[in-house]
Amino acid sequence: MAVLVNGYVCKDPKLVIAEDFYTSGLHLERNISDSCGSGSDSISIIQVPGLNTLGISMGRVDLDSWGVIAPHYHPRASEIITVLQGTIETGFVTSNPENRLISKVLKKGDVFVIPKGLVHFQRNIGNGHAVALTAFNSQNRGVVTVGNAVFGSKPSISSDLLAKSFQVEENVIHQLQAKF
Amino acid sequence: MAVLVNGYVCKDPKLVIAEDFYTSGLHLERNISDSCGSGSDSISIIQVPGLNTLGISMGRVDLDSWGVIAPHYHPRASEIITVLQGTIETGFVTSNPENRLISKVLKKGDVFVIPKGLVHFQRNIGNGHAVALTAFNSQNRGVVTVGNAVFGSKPSISSDLLAKSFQVEENVIHQLQAKF
Amino acid sequence: MAVLVNGYVCKDPKLVIAEDFYTSGLHLERNISDSCGSGSDSISIIQVPGLNTLGISMGRVDLDSWGVIAPHYHPRASEIITVLQGTIETGFVTSNPENRLISKVLKKGDVFVIPKGLVHFQRNIGNGHAVALTAFNSQNRGVVTVGNAVFGSKPSISSDLLAKSFQVEENVIHQLQAKF
Amino acid sequence: MAVLVNGYVCKDPKLVIAEDFYTSGLHLERNISDSCGSGSDSISIIQVPGLNTLGISMGRVDLDSWGVIAPHYHPRASEIITVLQGTIETGFVTSNPENRLISKVLKKGDVFVIPKGLVHFQRNIGNGHAVALTAFNSQNRGVVTVGNAVFGSKPSISSDLLAKSFQVEENVIHQLQAKF
Amino acid sequence: MAVLVNGYVCKDPKLVIAEDFYTSGLHLERNISDSCGSGSDSISIIQVPGLNTLGISMGRVDLDSWGVIAPHYHPRASEIITVLQGTIETGFVTSNPENRLISKVLKKGDVFVIPKGLVHFQRNIGNGHAVALTAFNSQNRGVVTVGNAVFGSKPSISSDLLAKSFQVEENVIHQLQAKF
Amino acid sequence: MAVLVNGYVCKDPKLVIAEDFYTSGLHLERNISDSCGSGSDSISIIQVPGLNTLGISMGRVDLDSWGVIAPHYHPRASEIITVLQGTIETGFVTSNPENRLISKVLKKGDVFVIPKGLVHFQRNIGNGHAVALTAFNSQNRGVVTVGNAVFGSKPSISSDLLAKSFQVEENVIHQLQAKF
Repeated sequence: MAVLVNGYVCKDPKLVIAEDFYTSGLHLERNISDSCGSGSDSISIIQVPGLNTLGISMGRVDLDSWGVIAPHYHPRASEIITVLQGTIETGFVTSNPENRLISKVLKKGDVFVIPKGLVHFQRNIGNGHAVALTAFNSQNRGVVTVGNAVFGSKPSISSDLLAKSFQVEENVIHQLQAKF
Repeated sequence: MAVLVNGYVCKDPKLVIAEDFYTSGLHLERNISDSCGSGSDSISIIQVPGLNTLGISMGRVDLDSWGVIAPHYHPRASEIITVLQGTIETGFVTSNPENRLISKVLKKGDVFVIPKGLVHFQRNIGNGHAVALTAFNSQNRGVVTVGNAVFGSKPSISSDLLAKSFQVEENVIHQLQAKF
Repeated sequence: MAVLVNGYVCKDPKLVIAEDFYTSGLHLERNISDSCGSGSDSISIIQVPGLNTLGISMGRVDLDSWGVIAPHYHPRASEIITVLQGTIETGFVTSNPENRLISKVLKKGDVFVIPKGLVHFQRNIGNGHAVALTAFNSQNRGVVTVGNAVFGSKPSISSDLLAKSFQVEENVIHQLQAKF
Repeated sequence: MAVLVNGYVCKDPKLVIAEDFYTSGLHLERNISDSCGSGSDSISIIQVPGLNTLGISMGRVDLDSWGVIAPHYHPRASEIITVLQGTIETGFVTSNPENRLISKVLKKGDVFVIPKGLVHFQRNIGNGHAVALTAFNSQNRGVVTVGNAVFGSKPSISSDLLAKSFQVEENVIHQLQAKF
Repeated sequence: MAVLVNGYVCKDPKLVIAEDFYTSGLHLERNISDSCGSGSDSISIIQVPGLNTLGISMGRVDLDSWGVIAPHYHPRASEIITVLQGTIETGFVTSNPENRLISKVLKKGDVFVIPKGLVHFQRNIGNGHAVALTAFNSQNRGVVTVGNAVFGSKPSISSDLLAKSFQVEENVIHQLQAKF
Repeated sequence: MAVLVNGYVCKDPKLVIAEDFYTSGLHLERNISDSCGSGSDSISIIQVPGLNTLGISMGRVDLDSWGVIAPHYHPRASEIITVLQGTIETGFVTSNPENRLISKVLKKGDVFVIPKGLVHFQRNIGNGHAVALTAFNSQNRGVVTVGNAVFGSKPSISSDLLAKSFQVEENVIHQLQAKF
């Protein structure tokens, strides 16, 4: 039976091999057939056990033409994104009370930084497939997609609470909940 | 001109007085006339300069009957909430892919914990005014209200991006944006 | 057999329930029949397993008229105290060489901050029962009551060492040791 | 005018010289003519500016025959002590509720560890001068001498509060306060 | 005059703009005309002021056919490397006493992790230009190239000390020092 | 079977004894018969289980006349060194691009600080045996001896890679590799 500690149990250092620090396939297109026209993938402690305690991980984002990575945030990591192909708009929103949107259109070779814990998104605003690599200062960054958390939790947050929170009729909330 | 360092510049320790570690009025009802029927307030480094570097702060939540604190999260703090008066439902949603809602109805003297960076809410589900105290393990916890960040940023996140993200018609997004 | 790691072993996330983040009874008067006329209680990782790794906890202090929480400190946490009822004097002493006492009389709704690791005390200086809530930026703050540590350790610190340290006759030390 | 940040302002790296990382005289006997027959000294950020941000410092303890370093603790550091000369008894007391005294008689070349934030003491239990070196995992460990903090603060903690805390007559407290 | 604090002074948050979180040109080939046939570049706090306090940065490595990034380490960061083009051998050496070389040949889309503070290198073992992106969990990772530090410091480490350390004749050390 | 967590599994606090915080023999001369005329030893978590989680450890350095501790660094600790006997030259080299050697000749009672992760060395530049004590702000500092890591890894780093890195003929590298 596994012992669950904070983080992951370590492999015996004497038995560690190069493969524990390695993975492949980051150049392969991700599946972008979801409703947002996007796909993203994570290279973290789960895929690369050697990342344990190292405080770093990576990811890849694929976006179909006009595809979107929906607003989300990482509770345990800042992010740095580099565009490999295409034209991607990305932005983050600062916390209350300003809620400033700080955004930028990125082309190949452009780099943008997203501070830890802030809501952000990506969108392919050009024609053709777009690709970006992402890096995180956590071995297990966590992802909270705002829509999933608010409108798609299991069980649901009650629709009248959400109606009041978003100041709309309850049927608008039902529409949103139906999608998640 | 102020020098902006990471956090706040310290007062000369020789000139520190008891008032630097003190504030008052946490027993006073907050204004709950907003559209959600709630008010919340923060006792942090801004109000209490002695909190600088100490990694702790407090807050107070007031809820009118059926009032709501809309879904939000704190990018830099875990929270512990204690109900002083009334009956409050509170809950948080875990990160992807589970998005489990873990919630509880709290009465006077009940305590509930909200892990750092997760979306949570409060709602007064009883009659009469409800009050809770909150504590945070940061001198400056930050608050991201999901609705404000997603539908109320300045400038706005484009409505077609949000329509695709939430999988609804753009007019639903316009309704939501109109409220923030 | 339990595996003892640094902190506590985690529950399987899939089996976590709302009760792991919850406790009750913080509104109930604590027993204040001890010789100091006070009682205090802790809501930490022991009572609320969901606090594991979250870096926060709470407590409650009850003071009979003129009751005292004896000088003590928390080796792993700063503290923020809020008075719910009564009039409480509290203060902390800065480290060598200044040893300044920074203190304040607190009434209902007043808040005071005690920096990590400094000796502090509370005293009910009014009539009637007094109550305060305390919050800490550690899941397991630790408490060192100065009298217990110095005069009540098991085994005892030798009385001649203490006599020299406090520059009094050994019989004064014996008086003090007899009480712990 | 100095800007007070958390810690110390840094010297321009281009102007740093070897002397910023250096001090001398740790082999010299400290003054032990105080009432405890001991002297101690600190090599920290104040004496060695190059320690800034490095998280380490040192000290030296001198003890006359039967001299004592009174019970004290370091709010920001663990300690490791090495005896260079003589026979020194040292011990620390664990936190509530156990208050176990864990102590040891150390001779030349012996090493003992004192966990962060716990009350500890040293005593020369042999004839002749005794010397120890101490190391700390903080550039500015802080020292709280229990007697100074409790009985010697400026202004004083009220004697009736202390009498109740230590469960002795107020005149015993007055005796203790008179010495600090 | 600049105030030097630990890290960098922050820009006024109200004046922050998207360009503070942005840089470009990571897709451009670096100059590889040095004697090792390689070039590397860093996207850190210097180029992107918005990285301040975020604990993350990036870099790019270019290698001519059989070009080498000489053995080096980063005192403040773990590294994760992704090959964009070509075939790159990379490896790190564990600390004393094992000094195990853990290495891997990486092709396009392969990822390899280098733990904080360990000596590592890269080499293009194929024909044609090779390119990799690197990410670091520090805003200012630091680079110590072993050859520069040991054989190229200013002033020099004395050659007889190095001869003894590396157990070779002093003229071998002179040969090495002549190159840096 | 041992569970390997990050760091070491803790002993049951109830069973902890003074010996867990203790070791002896730091006054004894270390074996200096190696080819460098030096010996060094570590008092860390391995020898003193009570150091677990405390973030501090010690060491001792012995140097024969003109003996050398070869260039090395500690990936997880800053160091503070105190000379007990003899005359020791010590220095560290700053990171790229400056590679400044900051060094000092130390006599009895002199103290010098070596920042975390920088290459440093010691040499006895006087007659007779020299001794120093070292302290580290880690319970397990790690040691990377540059020569061992670069020229003595198992398996070897390829000699042509090293020849290119150090810009010398491959036979010079072979000479160096033959010694480790």
